[in-house]
Amino acid sequence: MVRGSWSKGLVLTCAVLGLALVAGNAARADIPKELYEALGIDRSASPKELYDALRKRYRDPAQGAGKGALAEYWEPIAMSSYLDPLSFYKPPASVKDIATRSECVSCHADETPGAVAAWKKSSHSNLNAIRNLSDGDPRAYKKKKLEQVEKNLRSMGKLGPKERLTEVNCMDCHVGVGAEKGDHRKDLRLPTADVCGTCHVQEFAERESERDTLTWPQDQWPKGRPSHALDYRANVETAIWAGMEEREIAEGCTACHINQNKCDTCHTRHQFSAAESRRPEACANCHNGVDHNEFENYMMSKHGAVYQLLGGDWDWDVHVQLKDAVSKGGQTGPTCALCHMEYKGRFGHNVVRKVRWAFNPTPAIADNLEHKWFRKRQEAWVTTCTKCHSESFSRAMLSQVDKGTKQGLWYEQEAAKVVQKLYDDGLMVGQKTNRPAPPAPEKDAAGAFYGLFWARGNNPSHVDRIHVEMWEHDLIKLYKGLAHFNPGNYTYSNGWAPLMGAYAEIQDANTQLREMADLKQQVAELSGQKRGDLLDLDSLQKKASFGGLGGGMVLVGSMALWGWRRRNRSNSASDEQ
Amino acid sequence: MVRGSWSKGLVLTCAVLGLALVAGNAARADIPKELYEALGIDRSASPKELYDALRKRYRDPAQGAGKGALAEYWEPIAMSSYLDPLSFYKPPASVKDIATRSECVSCHADETPGAVAAWKKSSHSNLNAIRNLSDGDPRAYKKKKLEQVEKNLRSMGKLGPKERLTEVNCMDCHVGVGAEKGDHRKDLRLPTADVCGTCHVQEFAERESERDTLTWPQDQWPKGRPSHALDYRANVETAIWAGMEEREIAEGCTACHINQNKCDTCHTRHQFSAAESRRPEACANCHNGVDHNEFENYMMSKHGAVYQLLGGDWDWDVHVQLKDAVSKGGQTGPTCALCHMEYKGRFGHNVVRKVRWAFNPTPAIADNLEHKWFRKRQEAWVTTCTKCHSESFSRAMLSQVDKGTKQGLWYEQEAAKVVQKLYDDGLMVGQKTNRPAPPAPEKDAAGAFYGLFWARGNNPSHVDRIHVEMWEHDLIKLYKGLAHFNPGNYTYSNGWAPLMGAYAEIQDANTQLREMADLKQQVAELSGQKRGDLLDLDSLQKKASFGGLGGGMVLVGSMALWGWRRRNRSNSASDEQ
Amino acid sequence: MVRGSWSKGLVLTCAVLGLALVAGNAARADIPKELYEALGIDRSASPKELYDALRKRYRDPAQGAGKGALAEYWEPIAMSSYLDPLSFYKPPASVKDIATRSECVSCHADETPGAVAAWKKSSHSNLNAIRNLSDGDPRAYKKKKLEQVEKNLRSMGKLGPKERLTEVNCMDCHVGVGAEKGDHRKDLRLPTADVCGTCHVQEFAERESERDTLTWPQDQWPKGRPSHALDYRANVETAIWAGMEEREIAEGCTACHINQNKCDTCHTRHQFSAAESRRPEACANCHNGVDHNEFENYMMSKHGAVYQLLGGDWDWDVHVQLKDAVSKGGQTGPTCALCHMEYKGRFGHNVVRKVRWAFNPTPAIADNLEHKWFRKRQEAWVTTCTKCHSESFSRAMLSQVDKGTKQGLWYEQEAAKVVQKLYDDGLMVGQKTNRPAPPAPEKDAAGAFYGLFWARGNNPSHVDRIHVEMWEHDLIKLYKGLAHFNPGNYTYSNGWAPLMGAYAEIQDANTQLREMADLKQQVAELSGQKRGDLLDLDSLQKKASFGGLGGGMVLVGSMALWGWRRRNRSNSASDEQ
Repeated sequence: MVRGSWSKGLVLTCAVLGLALVAGNAARADIPKELYEALGIDRSASPKELYDALRKRYRDPAQGAGKGALAEYWEPIAMSSYLDPLSFYKPPASVKDIATRSECVSCHADETPGAVAAWKKSSHSNLNAIRNLSDGDPRAYKKKKLEQVEKNLRSMGKLGPKERLTEVNCMDCHVGVGAEKGDHRKDLRLPTADVCGTCHVQEFAERESERDTLTWPQDQWPKGRPSHALDYRANVETAIWAGMEEREIAEGCTACHINQNKCDTCHTRHQFSAAESRRPEACANCHNGVDHNEFENYMMSKHGAVYQLLGGDWDWDVHVQLKDAVSKGGQTGPTCALCHMEYKGRFGHNVVRKVRWAFNPTPAIADNLEHKWFRKRQEAWVTTCTKCHSESFSRAMLSQVDKGTKQGLWYEQEAAKVVQKLYDDGLMVGQKTNRPAPPAPEKDAAGAFYGLFWARGNNPSHVDRIHVEMWEHDLIKLYKGLAHFNPGNYTYSNGWAPLMGAYAEIQDANTQLREMADLKQQVAELSGQKRGDLLDLDSLQKKASFGGLGGGMVLVGSMALWGWRRRNRSNSASDEQ
Repeated sequence: MVRGSWSKGLVLTCAVLGLALVAGNAARADIPKELYEALGIDRSASPKELYDALRKRYRDPAQGAGKGALAEYWEPIAMSSYLDPLSFYKPPASVKDIATRSECVSCHADETPGAVAAWKKSSHSNLNAIRNLSDGDPRAYKKKKLEQVEKNLRSMGKLGPKERLTEVNCMDCHVGVGAEKGDHRKDLRLPTADVCGTCHVQEFAERESERDTLTWPQDQWPKGRPSHALDYRANVETAIWAGMEEREIAEGCTACHINQNKCDTCHTRHQFSAAESRRPEACANCHNGVDHNEFENYMMSKHGAVYQLLGGDWDWDVHVQLKDAVSKGGQTGPTCALCHMEYKGRFGHNVVRKVRWAFNPTPAIADNLEHKWFRKRQEAWVTTCTKCHSESFSRAMLSQVDKGTKQGLWYEQEAAKVVQKLYDDGLMVGQKTNRPAPPAPEKDAAGAFYGLFWARGNNPSHVDRIHVEMWEHDLIKLYKGLAHFNPGNYTYSNGWAPLMGAYAEIQDANTQLREMADLKQQVAELSGQKRGDLLDLDSLQKKASFGGLGGGMVLVGSMALWGWRRRNRSNSASDEQ
Repeated sequence: MVRGSWSKGLVLTCAVLGLALVAGNAARADIPKELYEALGIDRSASPKELYDALRKRYRDPAQGAGKGALAEYWEPIAMSSYLDPLSFYKPPASVKDIATRSECVSCHADETPGAVAAWKKSSHSNLNAIRNLSDGDPRAYKKKKLEQVEKNLRSMGKLGPKERLTEVNCMDCHVGVGAEKGDHRKDLRLPTADVCGTCHVQEFAERESERDTLTWPQDQWPKGRPSHALDYRANVETAIWAGMEEREIAEGCTACHINQNKCDTCHTRHQFSAAESRRPEACANCHNGVDHNEFENYMMSKHGAVYQLLGGDWDWDVHVQLKDAVSKGGQTGPTCALCHMEYKGRFGHNVVRKVRWAFNPTPAIADNLEHKWFRKRQEAWVTTCTKCHSESFSRAMLSQVDKGTKQGLWYEQEAAKVVQKLYDDGLMVGQKTNRPAPPAPEKDAAGAFYGLFWARGNNPSHVDRIHVEMWEHDLIKLYKGLAHFNPGNYTYSNGWAPLMGAYAEIQDANTQLREMADLKQQVAELSGQKRGDLLDLDSLQKKASFGGLGGGMVLVGSMALWGWRRRNRSNSASDEQ
């Protein structure tokens, strides 16, 4: 598109700025006031002021950026550069080229053709296609978005008053907005969320507001968690994650826990499609599996059935905004985005404003659902459900979610007591003979989370495992099944039936371990031993030999032989004592 | 559409009636004669006569309507109104509006816009679009359907001889066909299957005929079950369902078991699309999971692969009837509907006419497959399969289904004997010390169904659980995998391999429990006890303390504290003795 | 299409041959040189020479055709005719018709309308539609393919120099290429891969080359395996498959293991669509489930998310060749085919050229990854990944796959030692009292593969099962999850977390079984027995009675009663001793 003359450009620019201010204010209304309060700025702040405050907090290690409080326990692997670029990415020393904007594209069309092909399909590659939309086009809302972006860049001094964005290419994200040249060895960066946020201040602010709106009244979770905005922090500050030796496995967890760091988990590089992230399969990339089977529950619910059966006719090309998906886009059933990005009728990138049970059901939540904080959020859900359902139906359904979740939690808590008592009584299998400590900073405990990811000798015992799976898998699946209205799943396939099975197995073990202890005691007494003799040192050593192959020397030996485990064993040597 | 003058209207009406009679007779041919016999009416009965007979039976508690034979044991929750409206729905006391036909729509376009948007996409919202189809249109069959509906309503006096249906809106289903006005507090109803059946007599009769065609020659199942027509009855007359305290979980089962009560499990409100229900994902909403994984089996079978890979070109807009899907609709592989709604070349809403193994494999079925009742149904399957496959291929495949299922059943039955003998010998873990009775009307038994949904102390024991999962999950998955030609699933992932694992674990437990009993006996003898002393009262009490935390007082205490469980505990207090 | 006059035809034919030679040479370049070397023919060999050599090897029992080395242990069932037609198919004795080419179609349009409808949609049914494509059509590459096919047939004398193929119908595949008439009782055949290969020499050769390119440097697997080309051999030469009595279940495995025998596992009869097999769901038909969950991993990976979210716009009608899918077909993410059918930038039906870890991780592979054979294959992967990703990203990711897999293998190997020692010490549950031998040619062993498919008494014990699932399911899932970049799956849902659980349960059992043995010994000593008495004959018989119901007589009795198991019990009677 040929730009207008100077004078014409000025007129246009003024008009654009006028529009943008209006658009900006309207859009800004979706950014929760809690964010402005937390950042100590006014809602009337300029885009630059807002962005600078956001970016400062975003990059502050004291507020969650980087390796976190357990940094001393772990080291990055090669992939870490791509998971937390802010902390670990270094430009490639081997590539010497200094490239211009067009050289990036032309060279990488050969080097990484798939990436360039994706970018060419993106809006970024041709912004004039958006600018040229007629005002009557349903997609005209995208013009306003473009104007808002240009306003943001002007506010930051990254776009001249008369300049227009015609494309966003490799250089803008990987070197700097508007840069004309970049040195692979010096200038290359991997875009973090604040890089995307340079243009997309509104969306960045919405997302970052998760830190501010999620303030648990009884400290059920740390402030702002669990959320996308702090999901990397949640990951790296988990004791077993930091402590476990197998870093390639640990960084598997990280592969999802990077929404804090990057935007391309939902808007895949290099197409960065809003359309892509509107469909449930985008969320499914992380939200599936044993501890958060939201996708599976949704797809086999009536909601998901409607999506699968009738969704083919809905507006997936984002010709309308999410807020208009039902009224103008032909959508007749909910998607993840339609319900979870909405709060009291408005839509945005803060997806935790209606969170109540959060990641997993606990007594600290169950006991407080009548507190006004929880009640207010429940009312926000009623508003959401009544878009399609009657109020009485909505309340009946939401009540079933809460009560059913509590019913499952009751069984889990009963089992927890049985498991804890076995542990307190020293009756876990091998507890006194072959229970190595987990790697620091993790600490030994009954039914603990670490048992899902680490094992040595009789730690965790099978009972520990049943219990950790009970609360981390079965109970969560029950709750997620209830909350996504997938009855077959929460009663039968996952959730309730497995919870009953786990409870039964824990009770079985409890009875058997205590009967065995009793029998051992009887035999000891018959042998003329005094009570307690059974646990003297000789006996301990004798028994230790039972578990021999799980013990220290063999492990170390085989690892040395195969060289399969990481070198720095001094950190975790204690776990085999 | 402007209606014609009186005289023209009469002519048209006559023509329509003439057509309808022919169409009616032709269509009626798909209603099995067993239904007419059961209702004691003639095939030439008027629509009104047929409908009245159907409705009377449908609403008769003595024939399966409502709370069922175990009514005294359970109470509805809020959601029950929506699951069994006939029994539990009450109009909302809080909504005072008395609305006309158009007011329903206009007000709910604000109140529940999603519901109205769905209705606007339905055929119901604009019947003239169907009436105006040209005779050459492949969808012209829908005109005949509309004429049939109008004929039904005329027969019932709900449509004047000259009247035509132009739309079916909120009022027709939620107040009464043709009603002009409704009072929310007095007139509102939730449509049950007989409400849909007022217009759709044919389909209602087809569905209701499942009660009549499924008559098991050796009483393997109650008459007419398992079927969609009596699936609510099957649910509420299950002992553990009626007895379990956690009603929100129990009503999870119900969420699928409502085909008896409603039509919108397959034709989702308020679009009520025939197209929707023609795709496998519609059935998947209920037919998935551990005890009926038909959908998973289908999708990963060659049949499902063809659907997923080539189905994009098939007729999903229902431009042709199901019977013409292959010949005219471009369909080159089977869907659930194509095989299960067919019987000897005709299609209808009775989906149980070829049922043989039914819900789960049992000896009472396995032993009688050569009986003519089963043989006749097998031949009906051969007719179905030979639409695409040679007869010898079809017979080879069907034979593999039967033989493979029997092979799995053999292992399950062997395990059943081991489990029963452990129970008879009193050797289940905790059986003599901590096995509370299940809630009435359920009764204690080995490997029983209730163990999937209820647990307390050592009931069920782990062995009970393994066995109930073996017959309710693993064996069913084996059979469903075989019957849907998903070899990887039934040999490996579900079915055979898990059956072997369950058998092995039961054998393990059998050996270990008996060795332990033997050892205890030896120790008792060494202690100078007489045989049997081990089980005297003192000993029992001592052992009971092992299982302490699972016991009564703690349970009651914690429940009172949290208030998580239903108030009326007197019904089920006995389960903690 | 009317054929040209003789003279014109000749000119055309020469031109076609000229083109074909060029096309042939170009295409031939994708057939690995290893195949020519193995067959002892030159790359310049005629299509007939190449085909004859391929077919000879393909049909040679000494080189993998047919029942295999364990033939004596098993008999076919009815379905076997369709799984290995070469060995078992016999034309139907009951169908007397002798049909012409057109009679096949017209009669089967009534007999098996679905099959004919599928064929009518195939390219086979109208080759002129391909021949008539304009040269500018992106699908013009299909014309070259047709010319190549005609060249092949001419080389074999099955098509005259002037003849053209206008259709491939029932007769060509089920009787013989170009046959005009066939007798159902005498001439009918089921097409094996070499039948398809008559026309499709190139693709047949590519596929057959898997036998030649997969030569393991340290004999980790037999030559040419695991591969599609020898997957039936791998199946029938598995001891438990050959030995197990339940042939209907065993042939379930075979249902996937027939790529060696047939081409319609990927190109479903009778549409034989190349488009079909380009989508991941085609591979999913076999590549899903507990021991090869590639599909599940892919779909929930970022790669699969892109396919599901953006793939709707990609070229699924095969308007371009796979090699052009990204550059011309709009594809912006990988499918199974795009990565696995590629080797150093070329595409073909040999999918094992980059295989390294193969079916399952073992020390013999883990220990040799630095060997040049493995390194070369890893470099081929880097070439593949850098189509879209940077080299450093690709290497970081591939390194994570290897290291993570080794980390899982370490745990499995540790567990293996524990299990083996329990077995060597005779401490498996029931090992000395009730562990029948598996059916010949299988042999008793700890944690062995047979335990997934066969069980009797205490063989396998639960510990055996945990271990076989650990290496055959959990470890494979870990590796497949890593290799398909599905982090949630390999860390949590499948893979790592289940591996830890299996390790914990094995350690539990180890400790408990040894403690129990010790306690029994103490009791025996207290009873005045000498060490070893516990295992004398009397004791053995006494203990055997514990496992009573799992024993021989009852088993035989019930089987005789029900007649559910195969007659020839003499082969496997020993397994109940």
